[in-house]
Amino acid sequence: MKLYDLPPSPNARRVRIFIAEKGLDIPLHPVDMMAGENKSPEYLAKNPLGKMPLLELDDGRCIAESAAICRYLEELHPDPPLMGRDAIDRALVEMWHRRMELELLNPMISVFVHTAEMWQGRVVQIPQLAEVSREQVQARMAWLDEELKGREYIAGDSYTVADIAAQCAFVMGKAAVGIRIPEDMSGLSQWWSRVTSRPTARA
Amino acid sequence: MKLYDLPPSPNARRVRIFIAEKGLDIPLHPVDMMAGENKSPEYLAKNPLGKMPLLELDDGRCIAESAAICRYLEELHPDPPLMGRDAIDRALVEMWHRRMELELLNPMISVFVHTAEMWQGRVVQIPQLAEVSREQVQARMAWLDEELKGREYIAGDSYTVADIAAQCAFVMGKAAVGIRIPEDMSGLSQWWSRVTSRPTARA
Repeated sequence: MKLYDLPPSPNARRVRIFIAEKGLDIPLHPVDMMAGENKSPEYLAKNPLGKMPLLELDDGRCIAESAAICRYLEELHPDPPLMGRDAIDRALVEMWHRRMELELLNPMISVFVHTAEMWQGRVVQIPQLAEVSREQVQARMAWLDEELKGREYIAGDSYTVADIAAQCAFVMGKAAVGIRIPEDMSGLSQWWSRVTSRPTARA
Repeated sequence: MKLYDLPPSPNARRVRIFIAEKGLDIPLHPVDMMAGENKSPEYLAKNPLGKMPLLELDDGRCIAESAAICRYLEELHPDPPLMGRDAIDRALVEMWHRRMELELLNPMISVFVHTAEMWQGRVVQIPQLAEVSREQVQARMAWLDEELKGREYIAGDSYTVADIAAQCAFVMGKAAVGIRIPEDMSGLSQWWSRVTSRPTARA
């Protein structure tokens, strides 16, 4: 097994933290996107969309999409559970995981992609979309802050893949788009201290 | 159990088709979004994001997000399997499901939301985003057409939740944004005939 990685990508980080939380040792192969390695025929044969992360199995089959990679690893290594403990719990973790991805991480990525110099010429940058996405992130932070006043982690009492997705959104916010959790959002701030003090946070 | 439904929504349709494929009988409660029912305190207590579909369990707990609802129903009613048969198959179905959602359905919804009159004043419409999304859909159709020349269904030999997501994208394309599968895309056209001839296609 081998993980095609893109070190600064929040999606690749989701999988790296997941692997670290499981205590697994999976070799990483960093892909040089700036040099176009992800558009090479060899890589496109593995993932026709040219995206990272990508998990290659020993038989050559490849799993793309962060959530699909996590699900596979969860099935092979169920402990500690990071995607729920029973049917209803798994559904609620998936609900929160998707909310964190669709409502928080993806808009955060959108702010970056539609403003950053490194994306000029790689995508059609739409500054208005960056603005709307920034406002969405602010609104979702306020919502999450309230939610997190009542519990320790995004999906309940345990740390899960939903926390990982949210964490990676805020790592990107801080490093790349100047969005930080305001100190007066106590629910969100305390959650942030909790998750970033885990030994896996810098994976 | 009860499903809060939004009849024209492609996301709600995904869940309705899934339920029909499982042969389940779950009462539907249509939510009147145009009258603001989804922003009422009662509904927001069930789903703070005010979105549909939403599955309410008999004990009052609620599961939002189409994929999370499908996963819960799949666990309760594993036959016929619509999300994979073993660990690797489940991972690959999830990969394809997410690709269909993120690369095809969401851009299709984006074309609609950023051009349709009914969304004026409800969101900040960005016509340029609609254009870019339309181009993305066209590019993904060409890719899928090639993929489907080699197999019957999106994720392999069996009909799965990934087909359902793609189907719902094209239903919306045809009905709301004027995007149709070109006849000369034989792989995609034959797949479309295959999935739309299923008795559940109009659920």
